[in-house]
Amino acid sequence: MRYEEDGPRVVLLDQRRLPDEVVELECRSAAEVAEAIRAMAIRGAPAIGVAAAYGLALAVERGEDLDDAAAVLAAARPTAVNLAWALEQMRGDPTPERARALHAEEVERCRRMAAHAAELFAPGTRALTHCNAGGLATAGYGSAVGALRAAWERGLLEHVFVDETRPLLQGSRLTAFELETIGIPHAVIADSAAASLMAAGEVDCVVTGADRIAANGDTANKIGTYSLAVLAAHHGIPLYVVAPTSTVDLHTPNGAGIPIEERDPTEITARFAARNPAFDVTPASLIAAIVTEHGIHRAPYAASLAALV
Amino acid sequence: MRYEEDGPRVVLLDQRRLPDEVVELECRSAAEVAEAIRAMAIRGAPAIGVAAAYGLALAVERGEDLDDAAAVLAAARPTAVNLAWALEQMRGDPTPERARALHAEEVERCRRMAAHAAELFAPGTRALTHCNAGGLATAGYGSAVGALRAAWERGLLEHVFVDETRPLLQGSRLTAFELETIGIPHAVIADSAAASLMAAGEVDCVVTGADRIAANGDTANKIGTYSLAVLAAHHGIPLYVVAPTSTVDLHTPNGAGIPIEERDPTEITARFAARNPAFDVTPASLIAAIVTEHGIHRAPYAASLAALV
Repeated sequence: MRYEEDGPRVVLLDQRRLPDEVVELECRSAAEVAEAIRAMAIRGAPAIGVAAAYGLALAVERGEDLDDAAAVLAAARPTAVNLAWALEQMRGDPTPERARALHAEEVERCRRMAAHAAELFAPGTRALTHCNAGGLATAGYGSAVGALRAAWERGLLEHVFVDETRPLLQGSRLTAFELETIGIPHAVIADSAAASLMAAGEVDCVVTGADRIAANGDTANKIGTYSLAVLAAHHGIPLYVVAPTSTVDLHTPNGAGIPIEERDPTEITARFAARNPAFDVTPASLIAAIVTEHGIHRAPYAASLAALV
Repeated sequence: MRYEEDGPRVVLLDQRRLPDEVVELECRSAAEVAEAIRAMAIRGAPAIGVAAAYGLALAVERGEDLDDAAAVLAAARPTAVNLAWALEQMRGDPTPERARALHAEEVERCRRMAAHAAELFAPGTRALTHCNAGGLATAGYGSAVGALRAAWERGLLEHVFVDETRPLLQGSRLTAFELETIGIPHAVIADSAAASLMAAGEVDCVVTGADRIAANGDTANKIGTYSLAVLAAHHGIPLYVVAPTSTVDLHTPNGAGIPIEERDPTEITARFAARNPAFDVTPASLIAAIVTEHGIHRAPYAASLAALV
């Protein structure tokens, strides 16, 4: 993802077409950036935050109204708090330089989180992850996948199970693609196979990213994360959430206050009635640790998160 | 599914092409029936039992060796016990007439199970089902879907959530198709969305079929059933297994003895490493009731199942 003065334009990798095609998408207005976010050409909470920052800079350069542009970008998707956070960060200095700095800071946060998270891995760990919380989702190094990468580089990671993550298959399309590129042994599984692998003793921990972490630690993430959290608790397996502080929302007291996006049912099936909630909320009680760039945080999260932001 | 003397041949509805196309597949040898079962042109534990019975009759009519034909049919898929059961039923009288009688008996068992199972439904029940345990899976009326149908006819069923059931989408393709035909309100969901619907109080019970029920009640069924069982228990929701006695295997003491089919990983993805277990085992402790044509059976299942067969 990058901002180009020539245009000006924001250039994104179109994640909908990966891994079959590596195609860039050019956005020439805040509305086009918002549409790319809404249609999930770019997705992942930190990545859409960075995209919105670039989109706001683009709007200012083009002479668009700042407030209108910010409103359009903020409304693109409801659940991830990073969108609103990034736009807030840009308010005082809505320039390409500020957006680039915010982008660089987000990548640096991911690297620091990953180093902290690696401390949670014992030698020979077999991890399970859901959706894509990798470089694509974070405009850089990755949150959950960053943790896996750091653990792999330290020789602590043996294998990763990747939920294919219906309906848009971000696990089998994006996370598997990233793990293969890094060289980490992995196997894609149907989302519903995670439980029996846990029962068979093949999973040591579950690692995910987050779209919004409420003040008490309740965490919204891709639909299916809550399912994994219940299953992991039943099998005595820790669930770790790895996310930058741009994902922590102290203004939302708990998970009940997090808006859950319902996407078009045709993402599931074009033929029959369907429901397509895109996120779920995992209660803090089912989360073994939340890792940010500041370190590993444990319950009670209300205190550990408040001290953080 | 039917046997036609003209040929002779076994004619099956090709379930791989539903709901887009209604296409019949003609099998003219036991090997062709076995291949239709292996490739899941026909699937569902009771249905593949009936298909194997017709296949054995076909082999005898064509002058094939009975033992060879039975061995080929029995090896088509490993998990459902109905295959071996149906072949055993045919041993003394491997004729088309016997196969037709066995088919009719299986449909009758489904109708009786459904009537028993309907007693488990309170007015306004919102159920969740997985995979397809309907008419297609049972060569007739359906096991889990039969129960839903009976509850619907008695005015007890309000709505059904249908897991799409990756990787072959038997829920979104087959169960939704059947429920739409019957006229039961339903919505297809991503498999991983079941947990958050349970947490939101939108699911009153989970109803599934079975591929093999061990002597202690441990039940093998489509991958993802165990996941639902853990999630249902966590949320205090009963899981009901509806299956004919042809699915009960008293020779297998518990779930550890049930062979779990691993299917081709390319069913999940053609591009990256994958694992594709097709079934999982739900421990008896997570099953609120097992319903057969003889009635509603409760724990301890070792006693209730032994008394049954």
